[in-house]
Amino acid sequence: MNTFGRVFRISIFGESHGKNIGVTIDGCPPGTPLSEKDFLPWLERRKAGGKGTTPRKEDDMPLVVSGIFKGHTTGAPLTILFENKNTRPGDYSKLAGTPRPGHADFTAWKRFRGFNDPRGGGHFSGRLTLALVAAGAVAKKLLPWADISAGLISAGGSTDINAAVDNALREGDSIGGIVECRAGNLPAGLGEPFFDPVESLISHLAFAVPAIKGIEFGSGFMAGSMKGSEHNDTITDTGGRTATNHAGGINGGLTNGNDLIFRVAVKPTSSISKKQKTINIDSGKVEELIIGGRHDACIALRVPVVIEAITAIALADLKLTANAQGFQEVM
Amino acid sequence: MNTFGRVFRISIFGESHGKNIGVTIDGCPPGTPLSEKDFLPWLERRKAGGKGTTPRKEDDMPLVVSGIFKGHTTGAPLTILFENKNTRPGDYSKLAGTPRPGHADFTAWKRFRGFNDPRGGGHFSGRLTLALVAAGAVAKKLLPWADISAGLISAGGSTDINAAVDNALREGDSIGGIVECRAGNLPAGLGEPFFDPVESLISHLAFAVPAIKGIEFGSGFMAGSMKGSEHNDTITDTGGRTATNHAGGINGGLTNGNDLIFRVAVKPTSSISKKQKTINIDSGKVEELIIGGRHDACIALRVPVVIEAITAIALADLKLTANAQGFQEVM
Amino acid sequence: MNTFGRVFRISIFGESHGKNIGVTIDGCPPGTPLSEKDFLPWLERRKAGGKGTTPRKEDDMPLVVSGIFKGHTTGAPLTILFENKNTRPGDYSKLAGTPRPGHADFTAWKRFRGFNDPRGGGHFSGRLTLALVAAGAVAKKLLPWADISAGLISAGGSTDINAAVDNALREGDSIGGIVECRAGNLPAGLGEPFFDPVESLISHLAFAVPAIKGIEFGSGFMAGSMKGSEHNDTITDTGGRTATNHAGGINGGLTNGNDLIFRVAVKPTSSISKKQKTINIDSGKVEELIIGGRHDACIALRVPVVIEAITAIALADLKLTANAQGFQEVM
Amino acid sequence: MNTFGRVFRISIFGESHGKNIGVTIDGCPPGTPLSEKDFLPWLERRKAGGKGTTPRKEDDMPLVVSGIFKGHTTGAPLTILFENKNTRPGDYSKLAGTPRPGHADFTAWKRFRGFNDPRGGGHFSGRLTLALVAAGAVAKKLLPWADISAGLISAGGSTDINAAVDNALREGDSIGGIVECRAGNLPAGLGEPFFDPVESLISHLAFAVPAIKGIEFGSGFMAGSMKGSEHNDTITDTGGRTATNHAGGINGGLTNGNDLIFRVAVKPTSSISKKQKTINIDSGKVEELIIGGRHDACIALRVPVVIEAITAIALADLKLTANAQGFQEVM
Repeated sequence: MNTFGRVFRISIFGESHGKNIGVTIDGCPPGTPLSEKDFLPWLERRKAGGKGTTPRKEDDMPLVVSGIFKGHTTGAPLTILFENKNTRPGDYSKLAGTPRPGHADFTAWKRFRGFNDPRGGGHFSGRLTLALVAAGAVAKKLLPWADISAGLISAGGSTDINAAVDNALREGDSIGGIVECRAGNLPAGLGEPFFDPVESLISHLAFAVPAIKGIEFGSGFMAGSMKGSEHNDTITDTGGRTATNHAGGINGGLTNGNDLIFRVAVKPTSSISKKQKTINIDSGKVEELIIGGRHDACIALRVPVVIEAITAIALADLKLTANAQGFQEVM
Repeated sequence: MNTFGRVFRISIFGESHGKNIGVTIDGCPPGTPLSEKDFLPWLERRKAGGKGTTPRKEDDMPLVVSGIFKGHTTGAPLTILFENKNTRPGDYSKLAGTPRPGHADFTAWKRFRGFNDPRGGGHFSGRLTLALVAAGAVAKKLLPWADISAGLISAGGSTDINAAVDNALREGDSIGGIVECRAGNLPAGLGEPFFDPVESLISHLAFAVPAIKGIEFGSGFMAGSMKGSEHNDTITDTGGRTATNHAGGINGGLTNGNDLIFRVAVKPTSSISKKQKTINIDSGKVEELIIGGRHDACIALRVPVVIEAITAIALADLKLTANAQGFQEVM
Repeated sequence: MNTFGRVFRISIFGESHGKNIGVTIDGCPPGTPLSEKDFLPWLERRKAGGKGTTPRKEDDMPLVVSGIFKGHTTGAPLTILFENKNTRPGDYSKLAGTPRPGHADFTAWKRFRGFNDPRGGGHFSGRLTLALVAAGAVAKKLLPWADISAGLISAGGSTDINAAVDNALREGDSIGGIVECRAGNLPAGLGEPFFDPVESLISHLAFAVPAIKGIEFGSGFMAGSMKGSEHNDTITDTGGRTATNHAGGINGGLTNGNDLIFRVAVKPTSSISKKQKTINIDSGKVEELIIGGRHDACIALRVPVVIEAITAIALADLKLTANAQGFQEVM
Repeated sequence: MNTFGRVFRISIFGESHGKNIGVTIDGCPPGTPLSEKDFLPWLERRKAGGKGTTPRKEDDMPLVVSGIFKGHTTGAPLTILFENKNTRPGDYSKLAGTPRPGHADFTAWKRFRGFNDPRGGGHFSGRLTLALVAAGAVAKKLLPWADISAGLISAGGSTDINAAVDNALREGDSIGGIVECRAGNLPAGLGEPFFDPVESLISHLAFAVPAIKGIEFGSGFMAGSMKGSEHNDTITDTGGRTATNHAGGINGGLTNGNDLIFRVAVKPTSSISKKQKTINIDSGKVEELIIGGRHDACIALRVPVVIEAITAIALADLKLTANAQGFQEVM
């Protein structure tokens, strides 16, 4: 299922080494000012290039092929294409036979009966997050009042992220990390019981981002160790402001007007330079595996902008859904 | 949005103190043996009654009003009703005015402009999980090979759960907990990229369960502190069996044939006997609040069967979706 | 698929001779005044009892089990149940073996592999329109400005409907009819290109009504014989009023502010008193068939209120969807 | 809403004079042999060029940018792009101000608050059917056993279609037509009660095709004039074969194994060369209007292949949905 959302709907397509990655956004209200320039700061932040990120370089220029006229959204579907330029044909035929640990090689081969495109992970590649980020840039336009910001707060278990990355590079290894996201200045009341509380939409999207293995809102897993008298946030004014924010800005699945706060756990990149072992599916024998190609020593470095994007996508859909029922957001 | 699922779809309805709680299941294949008795062991496990759970007693007898004929599902929608018998009319009119900390009182009032049913939390009540559990019982029938089991592994930060509950009761307080779920004997290949990996469906449903504040798969948040060489699970046979299971049985969002493992964080019950403060929305003044009524000192005690149910629901939907595309599960 | 709608969503369940028929409406805005009384005029019009309708009598009292509080919708799902009281257990086991001409006996048996409930047509019964009519009553509440009215304009090829029905009764036969529906005082602009024009939603719902075999909007099939210069409706004022209405109030799939007009063709009731032939599926031999039980000589007589209901349902969903994108209806 | 389908899902995008028209198909089973060549016969039939069709020429070469690898579908989304080459920038700014009779100019302006792309009808253009036809070519691959064929059976009220078109061209006018479609060799049992009978899906898609104003299955509107004893089709063998086919191959919304037969009414092209009148929305005054540009005197000539495409799309979705529930088609 490559579509997400009820009123603000995004559909993504593409493979790592195919011709294009793209996204179609349907349900965007007409009259939203939008141009290709609006995507650039988002895309720039997602790009590789810094220490600990893949040497694969793509210019990632967005091409909007429908849905904009005279600088505004038209209300018709908005399709944004990106070209894959820096692909390496290479020989990926061996991949399914000797599945790389941590990757989708084995599982995709099972699910798609050997017909999936294995080149660079195909449709499972982190490159698809390009489409998410583009959709996030559009979603954010619908939430001009929201202040959404995510950052990497630890990597490889350390808050000295620079040193942790150096270490991983030196060892030919990779490291995971924790990304925290905050969204401020949200109206109270966004979220759709029973099945679409804010946490459900955000976590649904977060786990679609390759490498995410956990998510927690507010006090999160710490809440499992707390007492109600500690965890409950006291409401201090008629706007719903609370003295503490253990709830992470959400009660009953709805935003409560305080900062929405959550963290995601990013696993270490599965592709490492170190020698690994795997099974040869055909022969049943153990083989040694050296993963060549280009990869990110710490993919978590590139995750924050993706998390901001999915937050905007989830909130935009909830906002439009609530608007449909007469809800008017007040900040 | 009170419907979940693509092929195996569940729609729930009801309020804590309304006439009925219920669920309609659409898309269930015809010919599945099913009777009201099949629900009983699931419902029994969800019931209150033990130490640390609410004294509200309901017999929770399922009434199947459609979709079964001669002991089998017909392929038409299956609707299961439960009566709310042990309700207490009481005076809930004061609730919205003085929202209880940790509850949806304030946020629901905002979202539904004061028209929501506030009695016992209305549609936000944990009582709605009754419908989830009933749906889970049906879903599990479609996965006869699966071995799904969840348990409370800590409460209030302690593994001596009995003592932790005693403590909370003595203090008139509540405690949170951590529930772990394992699903064994799953086929490799369940999950729908890009937006419906296994983790996305399970987390989406998990956060619909009141009080859940975090979820992690496999190594989860620990993965943020690990290296790739540690986290990668080595494949050891052609069935995809791995030497370790840091991935929690999922690669690229698809089951890999190893045990699916995840944990959820349950916050402490928001209703406590201790005196609390809140704001009076109308006057803007701080008021003291004593929450009467019946509540669970440790709601996490009742969560495991709900987590098993949502796991079955997510896997049943993924199984049928994969079947639609020619996938045949092999365990 | 027993759910319809994007923002205003209805899910129906039940069988002709099961315990209950029902409908759950999700996405209804909070604060809409609604009580069980509001359903009565709609349900009364759908009831049998007049000449040419089945002698099966049901009181069809609606029981709202969720979603209403203090006389208003709450924003939570609204579930309405009806009891099947006047059922006749009888022996339906023979049905699948000797499928009745014109009925779903054979096709349901194929689709549901023999597990469908065959009693009175089971989930295929026209009795399910009870749920549609109840949903229509709620939908209409969201369109207070709309003036929706349908009527039977011919039966058995004659406009003297009374005589045509008498004839059919005398012959132990049944007759079809044509129902026309008009919806006035609609805002211009309802409809969702590309796949959800007004005609698509209405026709989708219309063909879900048992016995409907055709639908046409405005000039409809006559348009196939017309010239553009005849068919084009000249716009005569800035409100979009047109001199003629060959378009049936729709351009480009969107309402144009003129009366929405369409007609549906209703086939003659398949159950007739006359002797018929069919095949015995097991033996492969031709058998004579006498259909007992109760039936409508002219089911078209009971269709108008159902058509009004589906029109309201389609328009309510389109209205809320448009509202989500900032559209404000102006009549 | 620009997405259609439950399991076989299509999303279309593009405008008449924008950069691209395209479609994304999600849910297509992996392993279906497919190449760009497969689209050509379908696209060729849709092309303009013959008498009575627009002189706008487009080569309409399909560019598959994702979802195919080594000549087979991969199971990931399949996106097919077409370029709009033969566009004419021109001045369309006047359009909304003086809406063309029969077109969506006025209604789109209302719905999209003036932000829609008016050039050549924008997203409302018949050019979007290019995307439908491409999707139909893929859908048909999933139904190798089906024999789907549509043709124009009358135009401007005459079966001498050639003469009727000559006449229209001579008069600078346009004419409508009737298209009939037959689908043979279908399994019995396709269709999803209650809301997704075969007729509902086909009609939903048919009315998304610009200019369609009516649809009827089997005897269709004639059924309104018939008796049950005439209309009922007698089943003559255990495969469900019937002596007559008034039902058009459908009972209870499910295919019955006989030929699926339906007809659609196509209105005359709204753009004609004759002088017309309309209102100037800004001034409120009547103005004369001459529609320049390129148009089809009988758009119905180009409709048959589109109708075949939507039939294949509807049946493919129903087939996959049924497969999900264990249905195995047998022809």
